[in-house]
Amino acid sequence: KKKRQVPVAELSHDIRDGSRLALARGITLLESRAPEDRAAAQELLLGLLPESGNSIRIGITGVPGAGKSTFIESFGLMLAEAGHKVAVLAIDPSSTVTGGSILGDKTRMEELARHPNAFIRPSPSSGTLGGVHRKTRETMLLCEAAGYDVILIETVGVGQSETAVRGMADFFLLLVLTGAGDELQGVKKGIMELADGIIVHKADGDNVLAAKRTAREYKQFLRMLQPATPGWQTSVLPVSSVIPEGLEDVWETIRQFRRQLEASGGWETRRNGQLKEWFRAAIEDRLIERFFAEDGQKERVGDLEEEILRGKLTVTAALDRLFGD
Amino acid sequence: KKKRQVPVAELSHDIRDGSRLALARGITLLESRAPEDRAAAQELLLGLLPESGNSIRIGITGVPGAGKSTFIESFGLMLAEAGHKVAVLAIDPSSTVTGGSILGDKTRMEELARHPNAFIRPSPSSGTLGGVHRKTRETMLLCEAAGYDVILIETVGVGQSETAVRGMADFFLLLVLTGAGDELQGVKKGIMELADGIIVHKADGDNVLAAKRTAREYKQFLRMLQPATPGWQTSVLPVSSVIPEGLEDVWETIRQFRRQLEASGGWETRRNGQLKEWFRAAIEDRLIERFFAEDGQKERVGDLEEEILRGKLTVTAALDRLFGD
Repeated sequence: KKKRQVPVAELSHDIRDGSRLALARGITLLESRAPEDRAAAQELLLGLLPESGNSIRIGITGVPGAGKSTFIESFGLMLAEAGHKVAVLAIDPSSTVTGGSILGDKTRMEELARHPNAFIRPSPSSGTLGGVHRKTRETMLLCEAAGYDVILIETVGVGQSETAVRGMADFFLLLVLTGAGDELQGVKKGIMELADGIIVHKADGDNVLAAKRTAREYKQFLRMLQPATPGWQTSVLPVSSVIPEGLEDVWETIRQFRRQLEASGGWETRRNGQLKEWFRAAIEDRLIERFFAEDGQKERVGDLEEEILRGKLTVTAALDRLFGD
Repeated sequence: KKKRQVPVAELSHDIRDGSRLALARGITLLESRAPEDRAAAQELLLGLLPESGNSIRIGITGVPGAGKSTFIESFGLMLAEAGHKVAVLAIDPSSTVTGGSILGDKTRMEELARHPNAFIRPSPSSGTLGGVHRKTRETMLLCEAAGYDVILIETVGVGQSETAVRGMADFFLLLVLTGAGDELQGVKKGIMELADGIIVHKADGDNVLAAKRTAREYKQFLRMLQPATPGWQTSVLPVSSVIPEGLEDVWETIRQFRRQLEASGGWETRRNGQLKEWFRAAIEDRLIERFFAEDGQKERVGDLEEEILRGKLTVTAALDRLFGD
């Protein structure tokens, strides 16, 4: 029985035309592991490549409990209402281990999901770490070709998600909370150096003054760090997503960031850096895939593994033998 | 001028003999990038391999602000006082990006560092991600050969540190704090599935009752998750490192875990799994290293990168060309 041909030209036309259904089908094609879909997916992507790139790609991470989903819903709705087309994607490396979310994301972003200007795509739930990243990057390109001019990429779970999202975002937002003050509340070491903007979230009710104070503390602390983007002083903004309050400031900050980087040439540098990093990661994935596909390779690796387990070889010595060094 | 020969036999003897100076020199040798040190390091390691493995390897992670260093200091001191030899290592993948800690670790664990039964080694501060892991693993083996029977491996920074440490630990400890109760305070999605034990830390003063309540909440929640180690119900313990209180319970739990796993055969399975994972990661690193060392490879990759940047090729198509698929 012959496989049904994917109608790439038609799909490409409909994606350009703004069909969300076609976009969803295109993404499913990119995510497919079937060999016959692979060529079709690349043909689709190559054809749409000239249409891609015209968005601002905003990476979003946050300390646990910071209200990332609430922020994305409110921020996305504001932009969608203003006529922007907003796509929400997620990077979830932990799903390669656990097979999906444990806390149930089904009720998230309901209002945004129903908005005609919004498109929400959950993270690919299978594949290698590199595979997950590739799919999210290619999905981003398809969304851009479909006219989405704001891409929100959310980090999920443990592992490399922050650095992975930083690697594909133009602007990287970190959501934090107010707190006792003497330690930066719940911020993992190294994350602040990745952020172009910090939001002190839940700045509402009794929390408004504390949020402003926390914002000042972050600003002071940031003076001691190198900025994530050369020439850009990481901004710190108190925001409430429920009032809402401060969301326009966030958007204005991101626009200002873009203008400034475009003027200085930093925008192109960053976009090119993203592509180079992607290519590099893809080469690594392919190398590994090809190596283990070689004839007898798995058996050779298995035999050496056996010797390692029996304490006869160090891992490094086994490597030298495997590669004939 | 000829390079000084590393006296491997002497070093090996002194490490077995328990010399901390020799151990430190051995680790420096493992971390060296000089080609002439590479063979010496492997010779040293292979000779000490039969002496390695006789420790309990405890991975330790925590929500930010959970007091990981304070716990390691108190827990380590208790064990050192009881006659155990305790080594503290760290995995810090973020150091490959930022070049080191920003918050200054110089005053950490001072008392433990001075104890004759303790050995503290900061994380290797350079090298690839894979390189950092390899060095920490090999360092662990040297410490074991030197008679250290408790290895504490600490996660530091953003990135893969939790999964990396889980991958080399027998028992994985997660430190959390008490909190508002309706959300699990500050615990990133996916971390709880990695833990064999959870410590509700800072269970002292006004916080004792809250810590006990939090421990009960975690226990309830854990019933809904698959345990990190088959057959072991993840334990939850309130602990104060300053009183101190509960540290003996932690140690007894870990001993019980070991007994139970040794009886069921799970211990050997886990250790073998660690070695297999390590070998696999090392193969991947070597593949990448070798590929880019090939004649003209960097230029070929550079040319394709150029076409990608000019929008003439998708990353996937460039890959196909590079690998001749």
